[in-house]
Amino acid sequence: MESIDLNCDAGESFGRYSLGNDKELFKLVTSVNVACGYHAGDHNIMAKTVKLAEENNVSIGAHPGYQDINGFGRRDMSLSLDEIYNLMIYQLGALKTMAEVQGVKLNHVKPHGALYNLAAKNRDVAFTVAKAVKAVDDKLTLYGLSGSELCSAGEETGLKVAHEVFADRTYQSDGTLTPRSEPNALIHRTNEAADQILHIVKHGKVRTVNGDEIPLKADTVCIHGDGEHAIPFAKTLIQRLEKEQIFIKKIEAK
Amino acid sequence: MESIDLNCDAGESFGRYSLGNDKELFKLVTSVNVACGYHAGDHNIMAKTVKLAEENNVSIGAHPGYQDINGFGRRDMSLSLDEIYNLMIYQLGALKTMAEVQGVKLNHVKPHGALYNLAAKNRDVAFTVAKAVKAVDDKLTLYGLSGSELCSAGEETGLKVAHEVFADRTYQSDGTLTPRSEPNALIHRTNEAADQILHIVKHGKVRTVNGDEIPLKADTVCIHGDGEHAIPFAKTLIQRLEKEQIFIKKIEAK
Amino acid sequence: MESIDLNCDAGESFGRYSLGNDKELFKLVTSVNVACGYHAGDHNIMAKTVKLAEENNVSIGAHPGYQDINGFGRRDMSLSLDEIYNLMIYQLGALKTMAEVQGVKLNHVKPHGALYNLAAKNRDVAFTVAKAVKAVDDKLTLYGLSGSELCSAGEETGLKVAHEVFADRTYQSDGTLTPRSEPNALIHRTNEAADQILHIVKHGKVRTVNGDEIPLKADTVCIHGDGEHAIPFAKTLIQRLEKEQIFIKKIEAK
Amino acid sequence: MESIDLNCDAGESFGRYSLGNDKELFKLVTSVNVACGYHAGDHNIMAKTVKLAEENNVSIGAHPGYQDINGFGRRDMSLSLDEIYNLMIYQLGALKTMAEVQGVKLNHVKPHGALYNLAAKNRDVAFTVAKAVKAVDDKLTLYGLSGSELCSAGEETGLKVAHEVFADRTYQSDGTLTPRSEPNALIHRTNEAADQILHIVKHGKVRTVNGDEIPLKADTVCIHGDGEHAIPFAKTLIQRLEKEQIFIKKIEAK
Repeated sequence: MESIDLNCDAGESFGRYSLGNDKELFKLVTSVNVACGYHAGDHNIMAKTVKLAEENNVSIGAHPGYQDINGFGRRDMSLSLDEIYNLMIYQLGALKTMAEVQGVKLNHVKPHGALYNLAAKNRDVAFTVAKAVKAVDDKLTLYGLSGSELCSAGEETGLKVAHEVFADRTYQSDGTLTPRSEPNALIHRTNEAADQILHIVKHGKVRTVNGDEIPLKADTVCIHGDGEHAIPFAKTLIQRLEKEQIFIKKIEAK
Repeated sequence: MESIDLNCDAGESFGRYSLGNDKELFKLVTSVNVACGYHAGDHNIMAKTVKLAEENNVSIGAHPGYQDINGFGRRDMSLSLDEIYNLMIYQLGALKTMAEVQGVKLNHVKPHGALYNLAAKNRDVAFTVAKAVKAVDDKLTLYGLSGSELCSAGEETGLKVAHEVFADRTYQSDGTLTPRSEPNALIHRTNEAADQILHIVKHGKVRTVNGDEIPLKADTVCIHGDGEHAIPFAKTLIQRLEKEQIFIKKIEAK
Repeated sequence: MESIDLNCDAGESFGRYSLGNDKELFKLVTSVNVACGYHAGDHNIMAKTVKLAEENNVSIGAHPGYQDINGFGRRDMSLSLDEIYNLMIYQLGALKTMAEVQGVKLNHVKPHGALYNLAAKNRDVAFTVAKAVKAVDDKLTLYGLSGSELCSAGEETGLKVAHEVFADRTYQSDGTLTPRSEPNALIHRTNEAADQILHIVKHGKVRTVNGDEIPLKADTVCIHGDGEHAIPFAKTLIQRLEKEQIFIKKIEAK
Repeated sequence: MESIDLNCDAGESFGRYSLGNDKELFKLVTSVNVACGYHAGDHNIMAKTVKLAEENNVSIGAHPGYQDINGFGRRDMSLSLDEIYNLMIYQLGALKTMAEVQGVKLNHVKPHGALYNLAAKNRDVAFTVAKAVKAVDDKLTLYGLSGSELCSAGEETGLKVAHEVFADRTYQSDGTLTPRSEPNALIHRTNEAADQILHIVKHGKVRTVNGDEIPLKADTVCIHGDGEHAIPFAKTLIQRLEKEQIFIKKIEAK
């Protein structure tokens, strides 16, 4: 019997600004990646998000990013490896402690935005991220783009790794996501998106934009929380998965 | 044989901006309070400051403040108790983990600037700060203005507390520091400042601006690091203390 | 034949974060107060908001606030008068130029949040704000709480002043708004709110929470843009006003 | 009789943090480039710097940069052309108005750090910067790296352009500065640096790191203000120039 984890980015509000629908989404997913105050979130939002996660019995992960609220951590910032290591430690430490004072254990780490993308393809950055995660707690699971440098670095570093796949993004022949700048980057129809995930989970393969099939490992599916249709989309995906006897289940910690 | 701790605020540089003289000062003091990225410092400065502290064998403490680089944490910000609790947890978590990944244990906490002053006189804020420190690690020592609400709250909360005294500031009859806006707030002459500390340490009393003497407990002396004469001042103070058989010594953890 | 201006705060989104419904609201109001990047807004949002205002033929004003995105400019910050003067000049200069490069003239200034409230009751702050507005352009209209110190300071400084009233807030016997912390601070029913505005405009008086009536001048009505019912509320208010032959009309510049 | 302008970056302090030695340097240079609150500086520093410039009778220019205090505007940030245009307008507007309320006219614009470097080589960015300067005031002089895309864009846009040369940096055969990462990027000896400037000014040529000579136009020389030897270096350079009958003189506005 197969199972898969569903994760969503969370706690991305900031001060007066509200983003996403954590309250509804936390009822559907099994793990959440909490922004740590650098690309989004602040200490108040983090405290509330940890509490909400605990109430919904979902796994709590850190979602560290570049220190850039205005750019939402999506802009490249030409940082050195040392800086990346330090910003990881800082954010992981802040969220880990936020969780611990509420009696909750930090479970995983998923880098955000431009850092996620850079770590997916740059081996040095990937190892820097993995090293930082291990330094904070070697029982943490590292979430990365399925088949990426980040997943390899995590595995070589001795971390438990979760290969992440996307329902609403198309894949290229080399296993990377089609850049958003391309017209065919997104899968808009809910059923097509669900089909893609079912195919990946059942067969370990994805059909690329070029029409060929490539192998793709799936431990967790990213559910976007900030679109208008985020909640109905997540519900449909879950129904389709459960109908096929694929159960939604947390990843067990190392 | 008496002893006293000497502490200084540290790691208050920020990006391209340099502040203080940590390198020289760390050779003289026994404990350092490291800025946590809110009023000053950033993740890179924090990593370097932890390393420097370790190399100089000084106790490492967190120096959390308001999130206000431009105002250096010296402006009141009308925060709720919940916000103060959360910003404490965030900063303590970040620095504690920064220290731990370098194999160093966080030893103490001293709030910064406007937060230090507010916690000294506001009982609710004092308890909020003490509660946050205890939640992170009940072995941490809490540094506060000698005789203040913060010290009382720390003691009632069950924390080890270090009463902090100042060499270069004058005291009022109620035990508070003379506000900087007053003409007689500062003690400019090195020997007068050293005299004040010697008197406090040996007799447990300080002469106030009104000419009377009041009791004052002293566990640690704050050494300012950013004046032109910071280093010679610290050296003179240490010589005077040692000549009187008062030894400069770390506070032992609980 | 009477007329009144309707104003709304605008351009309060920030980077990835969206706030308010400027697009719909700009069709209904006659003047907009554009955030200047300190409490909300950024240079991109400002450029877009100026364009939207121009397209809707509404008067453009600056909405300067404290430099505090996380607190949305609603926290007191203990600034000196010089600092308040400088932050006014900076923000007014930025928005004025943003407007001018699009061929649009800056029309008015309305301080935001904690600065608005402080300037309403503190005479020194009120004069500092008025002086800054005059220094930038003495043809600018100054919006302030009706009957406040800010309006007096503006008038004494020689500026054209617009006395601002609120539809959904109750008044106290001294002409100030009932603080939001009080249970009866808000008027929730649309018709009651419209009644209050009609009464103020037609009779120059408002009924206070104590039941008495006090004189209240009204040049402009503040329309809040960020509630769920903001648009229907504004529409109802306009219908009620027009039915009573009170026309919605821009304030003419000096 | 030849003449040249000497410029320095200025107003780069921030809140509690002090940088550079504006007070001494302003006595030596003829034009200053004032940080506008994005990469450095704040509204208080800007007001003081404008005053200091006025007192020293130097030309005031804007020194706009990326919005990144922690990185001092030296990090690439992957901005769109629209964003670059908007951040230019915002900062120019703020400083221009800051100057005008003190009765001072903005004279020129020199982009800072990563933006300066990008505009030197990227034609689209260069035109975006030039267009923004022109939109604010077509009498402003644009300072750019001598011979760069930015200078060409400024000239094609119809702006007066000042070609800037460096005393303490070496040049490559294509007219660009040797990157700081190279060992021979910097000229450390004061006399060698002065020799280079004299040679450029008198002969319109510079000797490159490869030993060949290339043409190089010089309207203004950048004087760095933040090194230990900044002041004596500037004094030596001025003496050498004046001895050769090259006078230090402001650039006349268009």
